[in-house]
Order: sequence, then structure tokens, then C-alpha cells
Amino acid sequence: MYEIFQQYLDDKISLSSEEASSIRESSIIKKIRKRQYLLQEGDVWRYDAFIAKGCLRTYSIDEAGSEHIIGFGIENWWIGDRESLLSGQPSRFNIDAVEDSEVVLFAHTNFEKLCVAIPAFGQLINQILQRSFIASQNRIQAALSYTAEEKYRAFLEKYSAFANRLPQSMIASYLGITPETLSRIRKNASRKP
Amino acid sequence: MYEIFQQYLDDKISLSSEEASSIRESSIIKKIRKRQYLLQEGDVWRYDAFIAKGCLRTYSIDEAGSEHIIGFGIENWWIGDRESLLSGQPSRFNIDAVEDSEVVLFAHTNFEKLCVAIPAFGQLINQILQRSFIASQNRIQAALSYTAEEKYRAFLEKYSAFANRLPQSMIASYLGITPETLSRIRKNASRKP
Repeated sequence: MYEIFQQYLDDKISLSSEEASSIRESSIIKKIRKRQYLLQEGDVWRYDAFIAKGCLRTYSIDEAGSEHIIGFGIENWWIGDRESLLSGQPSRFNIDAVEDSEVVLFAHTNFEKLCVAIPAFGQLINQILQRSFIASQNRIQAALSYTAEEKYRAFLEKYSAFANRLPQSMIASYLGITPETLSRIRKNASRKP
Repeated sequence: MYEIFQQYLDDKISLSSEEASSIRESSIIKKIRKRQYLLQEGDVWRYDAFIAKGCLRTYSIDEAGSEHIIGFGIENWWIGDRESLLSGQPSRFNIDAVEDSEVVLFAHTNFEKLCVAIPAFGQLINQILQRSFIASQNRIQAALSYTAEEKYRAFLEKYSAFANRLPQSMIASYLGITPETLSRIRKNASRKP
């Protein structure tokens, strides 16, 4: 599984073989079966996690017990709770596997050392953080100003690579609409030329 | 006005006098009167902007002409549109002044050079980016799972320093609720012991 992460790095940056080795030596491969947790609410998140295979979701559970999905991740995406990571406080989120998955984990303290020691790697990670920030700004705008239809379209655009791998109930939870509303939107969309 | 930014830097990092000078030399001071724009939809955002005085807001306008406020910023906050900055594409957002304001601007190309040349400065900017990302993740969670009352409480917590400087109509727009709903929530909140 590490090969997928190695390929990801090779596609994006140039590393000497020593640099590539030192990244590999810090990595931990973890298999997570469908419905198993990578992170549970109340635990502190201390990793940087790259998804090598499968699909995971980040969600919170409100006082009434309803799940609210903050985001999904598949192969070649990063996932985690940056707030808990940086604050050292228990996470308010759960991350579990939507499908059988494999992740490449790095203890954050080691990861930070790698980012400093290997500037190209640090820059790559910084770019990913910036892109994540932009994506979350866009999600705020969508949540505030989009109709349910527009939210669904934006979702399909963002997650085009794997929307068909997700149960409709999870897509509805991500969009903040009921499964019935989602079903109506899908019907209307399929009728359009 | 630059003194406020200098004080902000002095509170957070140690700089040699050469480093402090090179940051100052790259800065541009800009006054923005109430209702004037720092950024207009359709323009490309090419700056990093620190608010030295006043209050600004970032918002989008939907097809029906309604404003949706993404966020506010006051003294000692940064503001801008990172998506437009990094993509070079026209911004979908407007930023204007809620009060007479002054900002310290840096052309982004110069700012990036400063971040590389002065590692402590680069690290500070990176921390701010991470905090902004966390704040926007929290805003997504709030938008998805909070009641209008809870959204208002979270708003007061985040913007405690200046909630009383904002018109109620803007607070309602930020929360994604009508001014009438906000008024009802405020009445109920003031009745509680």
C-alpha cells in the first residue's frame, strides 16, 4: 500500500532517495474495515493521514443523535481533525470507513520534522492545507447561499470521482437535507435534457 | 498605522531589525471608508491584507441579489480571498468596510518572498492559515448541525470582541437566518437568567 503514497509523492515533487526513505520510515500502514473508526469523538487526533485505498467520512453527532457529515475522502486525499491535532484537545468528530480502506499514517511530531527537513515535502503539505481551506470556504458559501439543488450540483462537481460509491443517506447528510429531498432532486435532475 | 502591525508582529515573533525593515518596506497602507470595497467580485485578489483598524466583511451576492456574509474581520485579523489569490481567477466575493478602516497590504509575490526569507514570519503566516482552516471547518459544522439559537451563540463566542459593532441585519446574513428570527432569538436569550 505504501507504493500508492510513493506514487502520489513522485507525481508531485522530486525527492532524493534518502528523503524518500526517511518519509517511508516514519509511515505506519493501517487497514480500516468498513464501519471501523480511524478517529472517535473524544479522542485526541495526533496523526497526518493519507488515504491509499477506500473511502472515509468525517462527521459529528448532535445531541439528538443525528449524524452530520463534514466531508468525505478517497484514494490520494488526506483526512483528519486539524483542530484536535493542533490544540491537543479531544476531537468533536468521528472518522470512519465507508468502504474497506487503507491509510498511511504519520505521527504528527515526525511529520512536522519531515516538513522542515525536506522543504519540497513541507511545501506540498502547505499547498494541500491551502486547498483544504479554500474548499471549506466554498462549502460555507454553498451552505449559506445555495438551494438544495445547487448544493447537490456542487457536491457532484467536488466529489465526481466517487459520488456513486456513497449511499444516498450519506449524501443527504453531507448536504444537510433529508433523503426525501435528495431523492426528489435526483429525479428532477435526471428528467432534464 | 503600520505601528499596529509592528506591535502584532512583536507580540508573536522575534525579528532582527533588518527583517522588520524588509517587511515594512513591502507594506502598503490603505484607508477604506465605510462601504468602500477592498475587493469586488470579478476582480483578482493579489494581496495579503492585515486589518490595522476598523471592521470589514467578506460576502457573496446570489442571483436573486441577496448578500451572504462569509465572515467578518477587525483589528489584528487577516482578510482576503485565498482562492482567487492562488488560482489567479476572478473572485466570487466582495470585501467592504463595515466601519472606516485601515489595512496593511502586501503584494502576494513580495509576501511569499518574505515568508521564505524570514522563517519565523513564514511560520506565523502558516499558523494563521491553519487557524483559519479550523475556524471554517467549525463554521461548516455549525451550518450543518446547529439550530438558529446555537448558531447565534457560536457567533457571539467567535466574534465576542466586536459583535456589538455589527448591524443586526449583517449578523442575520452571517447566520443565514432572517432578521426577524434573529430578533426573536435575542429576545429569548435576554429573558434567560
